[in-house]
Amino acid sequence: MDFKIRFATPEDLPQILDLIKELAAFEKESDAVKISVKDLKTYGFGDSPLFKCFVAEVDQKVVGMALFYSRFSTWKGKTVHLEDLIVTKSMRGKSIGKTLFEAVVIYAKTQKIKRVEWVVLDWNIDAIGFYEKYGAKVFKDWRTVQLDEDQIKNFN
Amino acid sequence: MDFKIRFATPEDLPQILDLIKELAAFEKESDAVKISVKDLKTYGFGDSPLFKCFVAEVDQKVVGMALFYSRFSTWKGKTVHLEDLIVTKSMRGKSIGKTLFEAVVIYAKTQKIKRVEWVVLDWNIDAIGFYEKYGAKVFKDWRTVQLDEDQIKNFN
Repeated sequence: MDFKIRFATPEDLPQILDLIKELAAFEKESDAVKISVKDLKTYGFGDSPLFKCFVAEVDQKVVGMALFYSRFSTWKGKTVHLEDLIVTKSMRGKSIGKTLFEAVVIYAKTQKIKRVEWVVLDWNIDAIGFYEKYGAKVFKDWRTVQLDEDQIKNFN
Repeated sequence: MDFKIRFATPEDLPQILDLIKELAAFEKESDAVKISVKDLKTYGFGDSPLFKCFVAEVDQKVVGMALFYSRFSTWKGKTVHLEDLIVTKSMRGKSIGKTLFEAVVIYAKTQKIKRVEWVVLDWNIDAIGFYEKYGAKVFKDWRTVQLDEDQIKNFN
């Protein structure tokens, strides 16, 4: 299987949105995707880009992506958050996800980043096994907490 | 109790670092704090600031802080992550933490942010109760995963 990893361009965004929707369906959250190609362009390719993205390409088609951005730890300094690592179902098992993941870690290494962080669903045993092979630490005692858009809008 | 909430300045950073260390001690992780005042200045007040910070001031002394930054959701768009909400022990129970937290949510509201997110330790029942009063959702099925600095440095 011949594939190429490169940084995403605005032209990739329709295919990137398809991958985002594919992951949301796998996580049983299809209705939660509110973003559009236009939003992705504004946020990712405007004056102050909010993320970077690697894509994996096979025969000029985007079949996988790793979307990430900077975060900040008050203990360590500059960190990277891997928001989404997605390979389309028909292209799994060909080391594409592995290569995308490693591209992010190698990017972090070149930037002298202090931590690479992401989240995983506790029932996604395959993903957890994949990450543990790299020695990644899965934290059992931290809980994610969120206020959603309506709660923010109505806050006073 | 008279206190004032304002954006942090570089002059506050030594007191901010004291608060960071106080929280790390509470979380039984004192040795994990590797950051310096100089780092905080570079990351927070350089050309591309990685965070914003509100401080609470009593008698010209910084007694609390809420440090936050932008993140990006591929489902929702621009979000805010609250990295640290800290009030020094002697000043708790005076609504300072509440006011700092609300300042971040109000900031998010003015910026049309789609989500405010943070993490909490599952044994920190007081904090969880505080957040649940705002209707915040605590996710039980997401796990934080990390590669640390040495793992990144040695990655190849």
